[in-house]
Amino acid sequence: MTTPADAADHGLLSPQWAGLEIAQVTSDAAIVHAMLDVEVALAWAWEELGFAPTGTGQTVAGVREGFDVDVAELAARSRSGGNPVIPLVKDLRSAVAETDAAASVWVHRGATSQDILDTALMLVASRAIRQMRRDARATVESLVTLAETHRDTLMVSRTLTQHGVPSTFGVKAAGWLAGVVRAAAALERSHDALPVQWGGAGGTLSAYAVIGGEGTGLRVASLVAERLGLADSVPWQTQRAPVVELGATLAQLAGALGKIAVDVLLLARPELGELGEPSAAGRGGSSAMPQKQNPVLSVLIHSAARQAPGLAAELQRSALAVDERPEGAWHAEWQALRQLLRLGGGAAEAAAELTGGLRVYPEAMRHNLGMSGPLVVSERLMIEYGPRLGRDRLQELVTRAAGDADADLGALLRAEPELAEVSDSALAESLDPAHYLGDARLIVDRVVAGVREGGEA
Amino acid sequence: MTTPADAADHGLLSPQWAGLEIAQVTSDAAIVHAMLDVEVALAWAWEELGFAPTGTGQTVAGVREGFDVDVAELAARSRSGGNPVIPLVKDLRSAVAETDAAASVWVHRGATSQDILDTALMLVASRAIRQMRRDARATVESLVTLAETHRDTLMVSRTLTQHGVPSTFGVKAAGWLAGVVRAAAALERSHDALPVQWGGAGGTLSAYAVIGGEGTGLRVASLVAERLGLADSVPWQTQRAPVVELGATLAQLAGALGKIAVDVLLLARPELGELGEPSAAGRGGSSAMPQKQNPVLSVLIHSAARQAPGLAAELQRSALAVDERPEGAWHAEWQALRQLLRLGGGAAEAAAELTGGLRVYPEAMRHNLGMSGPLVVSERLMIEYGPRLGRDRLQELVTRAAGDADADLGALLRAEPELAEVSDSALAESLDPAHYLGDARLIVDRVVAGVREGGEA
Amino acid sequence: MTTPADAADHGLLSPQWAGLEIAQVTSDAAIVHAMLDVEVALAWAWEELGFAPTGTGQTVAGVREGFDVDVAELAARSRSGGNPVIPLVKDLRSAVAETDAAASVWVHRGATSQDILDTALMLVASRAIRQMRRDARATVESLVTLAETHRDTLMVSRTLTQHGVPSTFGVKAAGWLAGVVRAAAALERSHDALPVQWGGAGGTLSAYAVIGGEGTGLRVASLVAERLGLADSVPWQTQRAPVVELGATLAQLAGALGKIAVDVLLLARPELGELGEPSAAGRGGSSAMPQKQNPVLSVLIHSAARQAPGLAAELQRSALAVDERPEGAWHAEWQALRQLLRLGGGAAEAAAELTGGLRVYPEAMRHNLGMSGPLVVSERLMIEYGPRLGRDRLQELVTRAAGDADADLGALLRAEPELAEVSDSALAESLDPAHYLGDARLIVDRVVAGVREGGEA
Amino acid sequence: MTTPADAADHGLLSPQWAGLEIAQVTSDAAIVHAMLDVEVALAWAWEELGFAPTGTGQTVAGVREGFDVDVAELAARSRSGGNPVIPLVKDLRSAVAETDAAASVWVHRGATSQDILDTALMLVASRAIRQMRRDARATVESLVTLAETHRDTLMVSRTLTQHGVPSTFGVKAAGWLAGVVRAAAALERSHDALPVQWGGAGGTLSAYAVIGGEGTGLRVASLVAERLGLADSVPWQTQRAPVVELGATLAQLAGALGKIAVDVLLLARPELGELGEPSAAGRGGSSAMPQKQNPVLSVLIHSAARQAPGLAAELQRSALAVDERPEGAWHAEWQALRQLLRLGGGAAEAAAELTGGLRVYPEAMRHNLGMSGPLVVSERLMIEYGPRLGRDRLQELVTRAAGDADADLGALLRAEPELAEVSDSALAESLDPAHYLGDARLIVDRVVAGVREGGEA
Repeated sequence: MTTPADAADHGLLSPQWAGLEIAQVTSDAAIVHAMLDVEVALAWAWEELGFAPTGTGQTVAGVREGFDVDVAELAARSRSGGNPVIPLVKDLRSAVAETDAAASVWVHRGATSQDILDTALMLVASRAIRQMRRDARATVESLVTLAETHRDTLMVSRTLTQHGVPSTFGVKAAGWLAGVVRAAAALERSHDALPVQWGGAGGTLSAYAVIGGEGTGLRVASLVAERLGLADSVPWQTQRAPVVELGATLAQLAGALGKIAVDVLLLARPELGELGEPSAAGRGGSSAMPQKQNPVLSVLIHSAARQAPGLAAELQRSALAVDERPEGAWHAEWQALRQLLRLGGGAAEAAAELTGGLRVYPEAMRHNLGMSGPLVVSERLMIEYGPRLGRDRLQELVTRAAGDADADLGALLRAEPELAEVSDSALAESLDPAHYLGDARLIVDRVVAGVREGGEA
Repeated sequence: MTTPADAADHGLLSPQWAGLEIAQVTSDAAIVHAMLDVEVALAWAWEELGFAPTGTGQTVAGVREGFDVDVAELAARSRSGGNPVIPLVKDLRSAVAETDAAASVWVHRGATSQDILDTALMLVASRAIRQMRRDARATVESLVTLAETHRDTLMVSRTLTQHGVPSTFGVKAAGWLAGVVRAAAALERSHDALPVQWGGAGGTLSAYAVIGGEGTGLRVASLVAERLGLADSVPWQTQRAPVVELGATLAQLAGALGKIAVDVLLLARPELGELGEPSAAGRGGSSAMPQKQNPVLSVLIHSAARQAPGLAAELQRSALAVDERPEGAWHAEWQALRQLLRLGGGAAEAAAELTGGLRVYPEAMRHNLGMSGPLVVSERLMIEYGPRLGRDRLQELVTRAAGDADADLGALLRAEPELAEVSDSALAESLDPAHYLGDARLIVDRVVAGVREGGEA
Repeated sequence: MTTPADAADHGLLSPQWAGLEIAQVTSDAAIVHAMLDVEVALAWAWEELGFAPTGTGQTVAGVREGFDVDVAELAARSRSGGNPVIPLVKDLRSAVAETDAAASVWVHRGATSQDILDTALMLVASRAIRQMRRDARATVESLVTLAETHRDTLMVSRTLTQHGVPSTFGVKAAGWLAGVVRAAAALERSHDALPVQWGGAGGTLSAYAVIGGEGTGLRVASLVAERLGLADSVPWQTQRAPVVELGATLAQLAGALGKIAVDVLLLARPELGELGEPSAAGRGGSSAMPQKQNPVLSVLIHSAARQAPGLAAELQRSALAVDERPEGAWHAEWQALRQLLRLGGGAAEAAAELTGGLRVYPEAMRHNLGMSGPLVVSERLMIEYGPRLGRDRLQELVTRAAGDADADLGALLRAEPELAEVSDSALAESLDPAHYLGDARLIVDRVVAGVREGGEA
Repeated sequence: MTTPADAADHGLLSPQWAGLEIAQVTSDAAIVHAMLDVEVALAWAWEELGFAPTGTGQTVAGVREGFDVDVAELAARSRSGGNPVIPLVKDLRSAVAETDAAASVWVHRGATSQDILDTALMLVASRAIRQMRRDARATVESLVTLAETHRDTLMVSRTLTQHGVPSTFGVKAAGWLAGVVRAAAALERSHDALPVQWGGAGGTLSAYAVIGGEGTGLRVASLVAERLGLADSVPWQTQRAPVVELGATLAQLAGALGKIAVDVLLLARPELGELGEPSAAGRGGSSAMPQKQNPVLSVLIHSAARQAPGLAAELQRSALAVDERPEGAWHAEWQALRQLLRLGGGAAEAAAELTGGLRVYPEAMRHNLGMSGPLVVSERLMIEYGPRLGRDRLQELVTRAAGDADADLGALLRAEPELAEVSDSALAESLDPAHYLGDARLIVDRVVAGVREGGEA
């Protein structure tokens, strides 16, 4: 009735990444490709070291080119041994044997399933990160522009949901920038450190030494790493630091992007109206309400960022890996890691688009800042006039102004005898939010300069 | 180069469920089917209430039969509005309009995307649970048999990894049984409570009253629920108890099955050898080592059980859903819920097979129990002879016997003058593990009787 | 320099519960008390069954009254055996022996550390839940009042942060109510099912049968349960359903309360101003800004609700408990369970206060609803006038009105020739949010009626 | 009846860290101390910049010396404002005012609660990490010794619970070493990067500029950082990378130590007997069974490692921090961070003791390796004799030997005509596990050399 292919996920429940390039790069097909890349690299390594006959690498690579894998069937067959490498190798070896029996001996020789799958996932991660990097860079550029453009754009800071002191949108954008730059730098380091995982049956590279003498396994690992563009490494089958660190970095990136999204989701509410998502034909519509323009990019980034920590924690738990290949912890990693790559990639692409076209409404920012009137500078008033008026008296005036829409804090202060010698212009300046920005501009400058110098702010 | 279809997951990284029926029941295609089921039920409801022309339900149902959905394309299109319902409804409405323009007006009428997707996911959950139920029942039967068969099969209890007191395999199987029965009962309740989610654009069922007067929306919800076999409910778009409770129940089931798996994984180690997985052609092989017979079923159950709590927690976090449709929390639920269903379903099927064919080795159990000699009954000795010998003296003898492989605790006791009046046969019985089983048999009986009475032990 | 007492937590980093009664009920001292309660109950059970001399129960109970435990020292001593029961029993047995050597034999007799600690934690949970229940009931009452009072108080529904259709605050309050009632009912069931955990050294109640014959252990367990007000049970040392279910229930409660908090946090923002927290002397102040009135109750509830799912997941992971006492999973439960009780208790108390004094500003609700003008009823317009105007034309008018602050959707419709026969009053009603409430009132009524009938809505 | 002090935690449910130095360093009292350190540093900074009168720093520092804080009361008072800084500052300011009214003006001047608490937690983290570092170094030294000592100690590798190929305990110890070294290096970097968090009321350092002109706030932040030994930074109130990265690092450390623990827990089981915990007077006892010697150190490390990922994830979720001070996410960080520090510190101390005194039983390792007989080298046999015998025939022989305890794989091979020309000694070598170690020694050497060079292997 239904064929195995019907069981496929195409991302229907994952608008965070469905249809994007990241979906391709991390698909089952992409993972099969990566596993085959690893097997081919192994064949080449045997040849390069002089053990496999000349041409073995080319033969395996050639067979692989035309090698047709039914991924759904392969997935179903993977249950029997608990991983997809076993059936894949069986088929590949047969296919090579049809072309060249001698070459087929060298297929997967010395390797174990975990070597292939771990290394393939590192390859897939590397490819996925390259995309995130591209998008993260675009986001960084957009945020630099936003921070500089709005270095003097007044807005209110908000703490515990209430109005705090005056600030600028430049400071907010600089904060976003600092977070993304730091996460992107961590991602860069993580990418460059992605290692080959090569340990053979039990982590000793046992079979290689029989064939080529002691040291052969480590040499093969180096050659495989080199060909695949990964870092060299001793075996790490049950020392999962590379996966743990990668997961933490991806969660950090998702979090840095998610911070932008939650701010936009708030500030684009109709009652605030300070920001708006870039519009795109057809995006953000509703199936029920024709007037809706939903902030879909931010929703998708936010929902991706919510999920990332749980997945990263799953990877951290994989560190509790007993033996030389654990009895469940390893298997629990695979899908979590892929899901993290997808959510990170989807969030990165959406964030590049969001920050690239973010609509900023300085008038709404100014309007909202004005809502609280001079209360927004009450901290300043406490500093400047507290000593003369007494903190309690000033608190009393502020409380009165806060509780009564008709009370004017400026007028209340003007009426205090202790402040008689304060000039009207001095008082006016004290009450002006634009004159109470602290080091806002310096903070923007420092963050932007840090980015320009290639640092992390 | 690559088409969207290439981005599909077929479960390559999920041997926990790849190729199983649960994969079909929870696939993207299955979710599209369920969404269409909901849309058809809505059309029927409109007709049943006398608003839509007679034949509308049949028309929509008929169009749906031949309705061809490119799921991959639909997934890609879902990103624009953040969910797959919007493009699906667009296509369905067009398709119906081609057949019957009047009927097409009633497609999705009054509904919002969330009504369709939430209700469809409840339907999918219902179908998935039916499979788990079948497998859970099989597991319960197998465990009843194991508990009864091995009611007197001696084995050692192990606490903090060390040998404790004598026990039986029947007690262990009864413990597994109690856990599975309780989780299965929770699942049963959860299944029967799965509700329709129907709120319209903003949770007030707004559009229905315009068409049919106050109360129409709630009546439609009831009819949709009835047709789909779900429970009736007021809207719960941002009151996510049904999802939260379902997630907790699925995690509980996975945990109860996972308990079995971790015990089997331990007891099937070569050094213990007390249990073995059922063998099956080709299962448990290795890509490197021809002698390997890996306990794959337990590995898969264990890895599923490891992942379930994180996913259930993601669903609990969805309760922090602001507004009348949240800006990310809802979207984060979908894939987590499906993944839980799949892992639960995969684990349930594997557990049915595992417990149905579990190999029990009473001799190995007996051998391991004997390893500690009479130390395994030292608790009893402390009770029986502690008062006469003094607790300190007895502890001293036990410690001596524990530290010296040649020391025989029985002989040491025999030599104590204070125990001179204890007969040899009494001492022998005191030292016999088979006579130190406490209420082991009663515990087995009580658990089994509870199951037989339909209770939860 | 510093004494062990200096290492104490008093809740300095946990304003969610610091200083509240829940902190007392779940403190280390309270847990010591509960452990002693369990030991006393065991002594009574031995006496009741006729094994321990008459007076044993009274003696142990009496010693316990004057028993002075240095909790900090006990905690430090607990590291050596990995749990606090071992040193506590040592001290208790000595203290009883000083009074009555014969009675001291029956202290902890037959029990193991896990019996005492598991059962004590169930007792503590029971006491903590009693507090939550009290607060949950108060919250339910407040929410019933809010839902009924504001059954007709207009406000806008918000979906994906944007304005949806008109709704009422009554519907929102009814939604909160449904969530809390359901969670409270689950809590009630969970409370009534809290079981004694009694298995002896290895889960067979081994020692009891030596003393009193087969069945003695189960009888002791029943008596202990009865005295402590817990449910009877077979041993569940490594079948952790009671803990798993309790954790899930507490997380559900925290989530239901957290939903209220996140809505209040949003709606009490100055730009929305629809709700306000009850004021209390000194609450919500800032160390920097004298004008601040922070929504502290909601912040605390929200932060508690954020943490609950992770803790509940930790408890679910405890189900993967190998052997008859696991080597780490059990130990990881204790603090997670207590923290969940505390956060749940703190959130429940804060929610009772929050909902009891919640300030509702119908004018602000009405003002915000008006912001979008007639766009908020565009769904209705599509239903009523879509057929005559054509969906595309109507979408065009709506889009024009949404994009231009000066455009008046009513006037645009009035100018359409196709709507010429629609009377002005009919059009006015179509445009009036107060006439587009769907089943809002019925939903409120149904939820409230469900509560009144003792159901769960 | 009960006083607030009764609500204290002394670690009764946390044997992972109760009674250890890490408990002191992270206690409520220690956090109060750190908050006061920060306040004193601020007073000094004001003086150093020439704004506060000479002597202000000394005065505040002096008052702080004799400042008596009732921590329990402070905790209870913290609920009102949602954090402990507000009441602490109030008291400190009053105390300073009693000594020197002019100095009291400079207490907390320009700062906000979050500056103090965030910075204090960074200080506490710094102090806690110093302890972990000490213990991690001791562990590294012990593991280097174990790896080198057991470079040639044969043991079997285990994959998916079953015997794999021969390996050495040196390789296992080297694996542990590589994990700990890498985590320790990450911790070192994390420690050196711990930054001051200084933003003032709304993240602009607003108040400082009024007093000292633009740039004053950033200068104060630098001076505070310098005095406290933290890194300088722009404000990061809602850019939580420092906390997120710290959490990830602590989880990584806990995971690396936990890997050791789970291996020890397995290998110290009586049936395996390959490792044993160091004994210590009174440790590992049971309240029921006098013969028990439980592996308590490993249990505690394991249980700590289980909990760490959930806590680190909680910190990652804090990145979704809206506004300039979030409404719950920040508050959810505090206890999670402290708990992580405690668990990490407790695990580090236990691991130093565990690895420092680990008992290794080479004979048991050799015995277990021998259990599988020559099957353990079947991978080698496939390489050496597969080509001559055919893979299928060899698999048949291996399967026969695996299924029959009396079958001798060596004899079966000897009987194969195709292997007639293989000498007895060559066959014996092929069958000898000690000759099938691959690159085991080289892997040990490479890891140890990496550590010696200060790298991370």
